[in-house]
Amino acid sequence: MPLADVDTPALLLDLDAFERNLATMAGAVRESGLRLRPHAKAHKCPEIAKRQVAAGAVGVCCQKVSEAEAMVDGGVADILIANEVVGRAKLTRLAQLAKRARISVCVDDASNAGDLDDAARAAGVRLDVLIEVDVGAHRCGVEPGEPALRLARVVNEFGNLRFAGVHAYHGAAQHLRSIDERRAAIAQAAEKARRTRDLIEDEGLDCETVTGAGTGSFLFEQASGVYTELQPGSYVFMDADYGRNSWDGFPRFAQSLHIWTTVMSAPAAGRAVVDAGLKAHSVDSGMPLVVGLPGVEYAKASDEHGVLKVAAGVRVPALGEKLRLVPGHCDPTVNLYDWLVCVRVERVEALWPITARGALY
Amino acid sequence: MPLADVDTPALLLDLDAFERNLATMAGAVRESGLRLRPHAKAHKCPEIAKRQVAAGAVGVCCQKVSEAEAMVDGGVADILIANEVVGRAKLTRLAQLAKRARISVCVDDASNAGDLDDAARAAGVRLDVLIEVDVGAHRCGVEPGEPALRLARVVNEFGNLRFAGVHAYHGAAQHLRSIDERRAAIAQAAEKARRTRDLIEDEGLDCETVTGAGTGSFLFEQASGVYTELQPGSYVFMDADYGRNSWDGFPRFAQSLHIWTTVMSAPAAGRAVVDAGLKAHSVDSGMPLVVGLPGVEYAKASDEHGVLKVAAGVRVPALGEKLRLVPGHCDPTVNLYDWLVCVRVERVEALWPITARGALY
Repeated sequence: MPLADVDTPALLLDLDAFERNLATMAGAVRESGLRLRPHAKAHKCPEIAKRQVAAGAVGVCCQKVSEAEAMVDGGVADILIANEVVGRAKLTRLAQLAKRARISVCVDDASNAGDLDDAARAAGVRLDVLIEVDVGAHRCGVEPGEPALRLARVVNEFGNLRFAGVHAYHGAAQHLRSIDERRAAIAQAAEKARRTRDLIEDEGLDCETVTGAGTGSFLFEQASGVYTELQPGSYVFMDADYGRNSWDGFPRFAQSLHIWTTVMSAPAAGRAVVDAGLKAHSVDSGMPLVVGLPGVEYAKASDEHGVLKVAAGVRVPALGEKLRLVPGHCDPTVNLYDWLVCVRVERVEALWPITARGALY
Repeated sequence: MPLADVDTPALLLDLDAFERNLATMAGAVRESGLRLRPHAKAHKCPEIAKRQVAAGAVGVCCQKVSEAEAMVDGGVADILIANEVVGRAKLTRLAQLAKRARISVCVDDASNAGDLDDAARAAGVRLDVLIEVDVGAHRCGVEPGEPALRLARVVNEFGNLRFAGVHAYHGAAQHLRSIDERRAAIAQAAEKARRTRDLIEDEGLDCETVTGAGTGSFLFEQASGVYTELQPGSYVFMDADYGRNSWDGFPRFAQSLHIWTTVMSAPAAGRAVVDAGLKAHSVDSGMPLVVGLPGVEYAKASDEHGVLKVAAGVRVPALGEKLRLVPGHCDPTVNLYDWLVCVRVERVEALWPITARGALY
């Protein structure tokens, strides 16, 4: 089917750009010898996860048990839940999942580690557990150093848990605009991770894995000598917010993800309205960009409409014309769709189901 | 099942509050003799639409053809697409739908009216068509007065269209904070609608319906003497942004919609992290509110996390504790979920499928 015949709004994946992104990341990490474990929260699509593994990834990260279930159902064999899992219902499902795939999970609380051990014992499995350390994002995670060591000791005492290392992801650093800011933030994070790892290993515990990093910073974690595993996610797609970062010295990832939208009204001079609003893309990191039409700005989103402001002297897109938008933020945008419409040279080549769409549990 | 056992994140509907909201709106409109046609874009749930009809609504509004299909599939017999429908694929489906239900639709362009007539003729149906007039929102819609009259004449000439009236919704007025601002905005909108209606009727065309209004303004459209039909949507749920409006003289609608979330990390003094982030609620109109815990603020959302800031001296919610959040904006939040978990007095009474979730086409 020609792309022109695809109805809107739709979520498009440009396969050429996507495949280049896969190869670029695989190449950048391969030279370092570090493990690549891309984050599947960005795409929620087993078809993409399997291609990441085929390109050299050891497995993927997920944020939720239900997301991990969708990945295992889709054929992914090795998953790190790069997050805490709290509550009996989720822990039971997590432990059951460990019968079907290699599962590791993060903790930042001793009582949660106990609950995890209970669930693992009930299911008859042993779970790999990483201590989440707050290396600068001030979200989840214990403090580096002694608090992390104490929790590692606790985990190590439980019969159905195996202490596997440290989770040291600095999410807040990814969208710092300048390279220097990101380098400085990751230098601090890596120092906290190093200190924590050394303290734990001084106790005789094997800190096998130090995992973290995102698309905006992974070269710095890679060069740190501390991290053993990298978990970037957005590089497969990119978005308008990442586009506002500077990237000197980084491999360049192409924008492969777009919203396909139709001009549904062109009622007045300098204004056109497209059929993709708040339910077709997430504006948490700003408005989407209009591809290939300089002077045309996506100015305002309402539930089902996007208002385009057209600069003086610039052609107003015509009623019925279809446009590509670059979403402001890829992760929550992908979560709005059931399918990726995979396009190569203006023709649809495949439909990939986003099977973990809405996987909140 | 007790609510306490419902896993998180989940979308809760408090049935007592919801039923009061239904009755309050039905009562407020009944006295006026106007038709109530609530907007289903807010709930996307036929179970709710049917209860609105049972409480006196003539039918519902939808924004998208696929949303309307979900409503007709769910048993709703009379739908206004309060929006333009552009492109052959959608128009064909719209015309087919008119064989199964009473369908009306808006236009703001003569060529689109022609396409609509073609689709209706091909399907062997006649469609009711309203002229969308820009009464102040500056989104879709032709200018009031002459431009609207010209388009009404065009519609009236087509054999498979029936000119049915004017769509005069002022979306931008709904969230103006003060009653006086909203009153003034609707006074202007109603004046534009009146002038347009009079001009059209002076031509001998019957302007049967003048439709518009939202939860924030419906009393003003009702009192205007111009509008014949009201299309509020959010009143069934309410949200944090509507909570920032003032409501003097308006019936009070209760907050019936909540996000049910678990504290998944409480790693540091003054901070707790819940498991509901950008994929569990929409932040386009601001952060959600935490119910019943003064001094606890939902400060920051990332993809799967919400960071709660806890004021000095206030108890930090405990790990595993479940909380209710009031979403910032109900419509795009509901669109993230497949089910409404309907609760009465802390017990689950029903699960209602949100069958138009993701209905973007």
